[in-house]
Amino acid sequence: MKIETVDFFYLAMPDVKDVGDGSQDALLVRVRGGGFEGWGECEASPLTSIAAFICPMSHSACKPVAASVLGQNIDTPTDIARIAVELDLNSMDLLQAAHSWSGVEIALWDLLGKRHGEPVYKLLGYERAYPKVPYASQLFGQTAEETRTLCRKAKEAGFRAVKCGWGPFGRGSLKDDRDQLQAAREGLGTEGTLLADAGQIWGEDVAAAEARLPLLEEVDATWLEEPFHGSAYGAYGQLAARATSVRLAGGEAAHNAFMARHTMDYGKVGYIQIDCGRIGGIGPAKRVAEHAVKSGVTYVNHTFTSHLALSASLQPFAGLKDHVICEYPIAPQAMAWEMCANHILPDQNGEVHVPHSPGLGIEVDTARVRAFLVDVEITVNGNTLYRTPAV
Amino acid sequence: MKIETVDFFYLAMPDVKDVGDGSQDALLVRVRGGGFEGWGECEASPLTSIAAFICPMSHSACKPVAASVLGQNIDTPTDIARIAVELDLNSMDLLQAAHSWSGVEIALWDLLGKRHGEPVYKLLGYERAYPKVPYASQLFGQTAEETRTLCRKAKEAGFRAVKCGWGPFGRGSLKDDRDQLQAAREGLGTEGTLLADAGQIWGEDVAAAEARLPLLEEVDATWLEEPFHGSAYGAYGQLAARATSVRLAGGEAAHNAFMARHTMDYGKVGYIQIDCGRIGGIGPAKRVAEHAVKSGVTYVNHTFTSHLALSASLQPFAGLKDHVICEYPIAPQAMAWEMCANHILPDQNGEVHVPHSPGLGIEVDTARVRAFLVDVEITVNGNTLYRTPAV
Repeated sequence: MKIETVDFFYLAMPDVKDVGDGSQDALLVRVRGGGFEGWGECEASPLTSIAAFICPMSHSACKPVAASVLGQNIDTPTDIARIAVELDLNSMDLLQAAHSWSGVEIALWDLLGKRHGEPVYKLLGYERAYPKVPYASQLFGQTAEETRTLCRKAKEAGFRAVKCGWGPFGRGSLKDDRDQLQAAREGLGTEGTLLADAGQIWGEDVAAAEARLPLLEEVDATWLEEPFHGSAYGAYGQLAARATSVRLAGGEAAHNAFMARHTMDYGKVGYIQIDCGRIGGIGPAKRVAEHAVKSGVTYVNHTFTSHLALSASLQPFAGLKDHVICEYPIAPQAMAWEMCANHILPDQNGEVHVPHSPGLGIEVDTARVRAFLVDVEITVNGNTLYRTPAV
Repeated sequence: MKIETVDFFYLAMPDVKDVGDGSQDALLVRVRGGGFEGWGECEASPLTSIAAFICPMSHSACKPVAASVLGQNIDTPTDIARIAVELDLNSMDLLQAAHSWSGVEIALWDLLGKRHGEPVYKLLGYERAYPKVPYASQLFGQTAEETRTLCRKAKEAGFRAVKCGWGPFGRGSLKDDRDQLQAAREGLGTEGTLLADAGQIWGEDVAAAEARLPLLEEVDATWLEEPFHGSAYGAYGQLAARATSVRLAGGEAAHNAFMARHTMDYGKVGYIQIDCGRIGGIGPAKRVAEHAVKSGVTYVNHTFTSHLALSASLQPFAGLKDHVICEYPIAPQAMAWEMCANHILPDQNGEVHVPHSPGLGIEVDTARVRAFLVDVEITVNGNTLYRTPAV
């Protein structure tokens, strides 16, 4: 079948706040071809990613993403990979292309799955999907007391694993960080899996990060996430060599499979975190999962918006039985929740299951999409290159 | 002084063709503060980079570039570095931010230079600027005969070094590539420096690239540029280990200093090619030059648009006496030439000199800018976030 149309929908909460909550807006992608419809999502700046899809060509290696996608034939997963290779050359100098293409690529897998009547993980070659243990992903409280309460609530809600990140962590004294981590452990109890996310706060300052290792080991934290800039593989590698029980986690910034491999090979992380909405979609994420298995690294999804994005992010490691932990947005904004008509909910064991219905198995609620839709218009020399389409 | 305004100007030739000529459009940046004006240029998709500057915030780590720049105080180079660090955190999830910021950063150096009455290379700590030997940067001809003629003409125009790239190279048989390389050497003569650019054509296929090494050695080529994807450091490193006289060159895709360092440390290139209009501007490029010196790697600029971009690209290695070769656009489109009122021309020895006047030493021809100006308007929920400003 032919890729007939690709439409981008920019959704947002009425009031986007200056906080570390990535569920305040979304960029939804709809592809249509052969009577089928597929949906995907970019984890990216919506306006900038729309621009990357429709921008005028600058030269033969700086073409809009649309130039490599529209009108292409697509019948099997090989076709998606072929388009990705063409895009790499056609949009080599368009930095945002990877983020813009990611949502399209995901939508193409959804489309193919629906056409073949198979869930995406089967198209990826997995015989079956194993349940995952979701961790509650949340911000550190402004005070240790607040963090204790947040972790206790997550535990009471049934979560066996909790991640605290960002906020004041790494910005104050060692004592402040120790208080935060101790409070998190107290709230979660001795049994739960505790994860900490530094949000790149130390740049490439290995000493600053190293000073926190004893505090993390004291509370039996499983991982320290993103201590450094996403490209600072050398700093990652040095810190990994100095850690004892704590492993490093990272990779969410990777916008191609190479970068994720480097985070493992040079950065020596124990957990590789991949956002399908950034790395170029599900195809490259699956290749990263294969490399992780070979390298003894655990694959984890990175997801903080809708359950459409969540389903996409689970597919690349759905069939890896031993890679069990998964990121699960615990308190998304109304937009991120309501844009999907069905959801991936923890069962009575607190585990989540990849949908078994064709494609990604998530239905978009077009009425709710309309409610959060942002009107965008981009004109260049009098020609309208983009106007928010009808849902 | 305060950064009062930042204005983006998208210029383009009336007809942008599907060829590997990057001088067909440009994104010019003007900053104003304290009664001074600085100019810079992004080497990037203009529309997408404008969107990255003005897009609505998605969350605290996905803010528009403008949020980290407008209203900031800037008096010394340290202030530029401080803004860059803030931007890294504020726009962590906005991929295009690096390209958008690059032009602003360059304009800030021009502004500071004018304010302090010093050329930028002096603000960077260099006592003096050494002349560079420009190489003529051109595409391989469609036939070997055409390539021979192109190289002979470059030699006759006074160039002591010529780079041929892209076109059919690497896409056909080994014999085709051999014919092309032999023709290039014949056209250039035995004395000239011959450089070859594969434009990432082999992805990460080391064997395909290795098969060309004997052909390159046969014609005494100095470097093989971009055999692989810009992030394929492993493939670079493997090929470098197998080469004898030919060195690898790469790095133009780097959108931060880390990536350039990786290209040297892991990729083992002999020449690191930096585009100031992509890597985050002149500041990170200077740090790359320092790392190159320590690593025994030769720094080379990557430039294919205007002489404003050329001046910016020469500053980071202006004071490195032994890093002499420089990329020089041999046949830019009218837009790329005319947007500057003065130019960097080879002297009677065929060498070029970094301008000694304050800032970047290049004046923008606002009348000609107006002639090539592209009208853009971006509205979001009825608010005009960008409209092409008056020059």
